[in-house]
Amino acid sequence: MNQPWTQRSRPDRFERRVEFDDYEATRVFLERLNDLSDRLDKFPDISFGRTYVNLTVRPEEGQVFGEAEQSFIAEIDELL
Amino acid sequence: MNQPWTQRSRPDRFERRVEFDDYEATRVFLERLNDLSDRLDKFPDISFGRTYVNLTVRPEEGQVFGEAEQSFIAEIDELL
Repeated sequence: MNQPWTQRSRPDRFERRVEFDDYEATRVFLERLNDLSDRLDKFPDISFGRTYVNLTVRPEEGQVFGEAEQSFIAEIDELL
Repeated sequence: MNQPWTQRSRPDRFERRVEFDDYEATRVFLERLNDLSDRLDKFPDISFGRTYVNLTVRPEEGQVFGEAEQSFIAEIDELL
């Protein structure tokens, strides 16, 4: 089951868990996410295993959430 | 600083944190690790950000640690 993003604080971050049917699907998503990170120069923290990926998006150090992070989150969702 | 593996229990697992100078070095390691996982059909839990990777190796469900996991850990170390 895929869940929407959850906003958390201390430190400020958005988190989302995504589950996949198999490792191949997980890999395809991670590769697309890597391409997106390279293009935007934004790097979420990522935890993954065979069939899941946990994403954490944080603002740049010393910054607060803004349009850049909202846009990044929306682009991640489009990969799914 | 790179640390050796730490064995933990409940649940049984080995953990290791590896740090890299930049995202490119992190990516190269993750790709080599992916090739190793495909070859051995063993999949650690992986957390990573721009310049770090945290690895957790668990035994197969219902099993205890054995030679297979020790061998897998040694092969991961050889990637570094």
